[in-house]
Amino acid sequence: MQEQVAAGIDIGGTNTVIGLINARGECLAREAIKTWDYPRVEDFVERLHVIAGELVAASGTTIAGIGIGVPAGNPDRGTVHASNLPWKGVVPIASLFEARFHLPVFVTNDAKAAVLGEMTYGAARNMKNFAVVTLGTGLGCGIVLNGEIVYGHDGFAGELGHVIVTPGGRACQCGRRGCLETYVSATGIKRTALELLATEIEDSSLRDLPLQALGSKSINEAAAQGDSIALKTFQRAGEVLGLALANLAAIIHPEAIFLQGGAARAGTWFHDAVSRSMNENLLFLYKGKVTVQRSSLHGGAIIGASALVWRAS
Amino acid sequence: MQEQVAAGIDIGGTNTVIGLINARGECLAREAIKTWDYPRVEDFVERLHVIAGELVAASGTTIAGIGIGVPAGNPDRGTVHASNLPWKGVVPIASLFEARFHLPVFVTNDAKAAVLGEMTYGAARNMKNFAVVTLGTGLGCGIVLNGEIVYGHDGFAGELGHVIVTPGGRACQCGRRGCLETYVSATGIKRTALELLATEIEDSSLRDLPLQALGSKSINEAAAQGDSIALKTFQRAGEVLGLALANLAAIIHPEAIFLQGGAARAGTWFHDAVSRSMNENLLFLYKGKVTVQRSSLHGGAIIGASALVWRAS
Repeated sequence: MQEQVAAGIDIGGTNTVIGLINARGECLAREAIKTWDYPRVEDFVERLHVIAGELVAASGTTIAGIGIGVPAGNPDRGTVHASNLPWKGVVPIASLFEARFHLPVFVTNDAKAAVLGEMTYGAARNMKNFAVVTLGTGLGCGIVLNGEIVYGHDGFAGELGHVIVTPGGRACQCGRRGCLETYVSATGIKRTALELLATEIEDSSLRDLPLQALGSKSINEAAAQGDSIALKTFQRAGEVLGLALANLAAIIHPEAIFLQGGAARAGTWFHDAVSRSMNENLLFLYKGKVTVQRSSLHGGAIIGASALVWRAS
Repeated sequence: MQEQVAAGIDIGGTNTVIGLINARGECLAREAIKTWDYPRVEDFVERLHVIAGELVAASGTTIAGIGIGVPAGNPDRGTVHASNLPWKGVVPIASLFEARFHLPVFVTNDAKAAVLGEMTYGAARNMKNFAVVTLGTGLGCGIVLNGEIVYGHDGFAGELGHVIVTPGGRACQCGRRGCLETYVSATGIKRTALELLATEIEDSSLRDLPLQALGSKSINEAAAQGDSIALKTFQRAGEVLGLALANLAAIIHPEAIFLQGGAARAGTWFHDAVSRSMNENLLFLYKGKVTVQRSSLHGGAIIGASALVWRAS
């Protein structure tokens, strides 16, 4: 008999990843596509259906269900309404996938999928109160309190990336200014580097890069070589995120905050700056009682999204 | 047979109120003392024991238990560690009251006691996701998500008053700078009035007051007379609180946020400024889905604290 797997899909502002995950949380096969290559959502679903067929054939499995993690996904309605995806307005993503795959489909916020991963397979297995911050194109956040994922009144809790940290600050995709994710995300880090390259005069290897190549990855590589603009960029991003996490702690008092995603895997300079800034800004009540940790999960979002299928069955 | 009542005690940075509340949430008798008149916590407990005896005798009741709402109270440990009370360090408030009263004692954060009041007797009876902001000497906050009060990892969730809204801003009792409650609370409103009296030159009836008499009550009275410094004071406080509530909404997505306490009972100018600022700063996902409401409860904290007794029995 063929092994039953869950398809985990992580729809991101840049890439969409689909993977087949077994009941032990192991990823047996995966593939990524560029989200913006599909301006029509129907073409996007069709392409993933083709890929899923190929992955199933190659791995000798059958799909029991589909878990989708997507920015601003609404778990109750199975819809998505995100500012950084190609499809405008409210998209009925669950019914579109159900109609094509004839399988049960579960939708969640991509950040909450990451939380499910930490709860099921990661370091948060025994924690009742924690948060996961995902650093990708944007900044997502999943929150667990009293052992339960926080969805809020209408499914949209955890939009930490859209907390306004600098009124009147950097323009955000959401139409407002000063949101945390304009400072702390792959995009935010690039913007900080641009700002420093404009305001400072010191030498930097970043000045030699084509502008297209400037990103959290190349800035991280420069930082590893001791480039001071690159190091200052991560230092600033760390300071902003650390303050935001201290403020988050004052509201929900988590035991730990896990950092996931590309920037979280940057050199220790970023993590150290976040941790130092959070501890400096922490109210005395929380001193020594909240830690910032790098996630041990890799590819967390598809793993977490797939957990939705096993939890429902 | 004598009616059973719960003693509700609200320990505030200025006043402490004790009341006898029956199972229907009616306050049968109450009295207030000045918290700072009792530098020794043992004298404070003793005084409340005497008052409770008088209230019981006058009302012909017996006390079934004691519910205490206190800033930075720890419900699990029955302790308090607050920066705006006369007693320093961690005070074992529950065991001190138990030893003197020989009754079951329940401790909670004063703001969470206010939440219990809204859940039991107020407009939040049918809500699963809401927050209560209490505006007194400081700014407290109680949060309910999935129908449960949020305590966080160690009992200290909901310290919204200590979210840093202006890094390097006004000095706070907690030892840091820029906390929300230094701008939005009875004390914060007074500080804003002082700042405006310093920076502006326009006439104001507030300039004729003895400095001791300047407070949220007298500023509210001046605003009712159209005093522009007083109106600007509430306008600024409303702007700061509105932004903080929009940011809170992005994290927990409540259905409603209730304002309790003296400043919340000020003229409509304050409430209108809060509501306008929150709506202006709200992420598109939440527009029209989060309301700011004035609490319908009066004396909410002792009512809510008393609910702890009935919930435990």
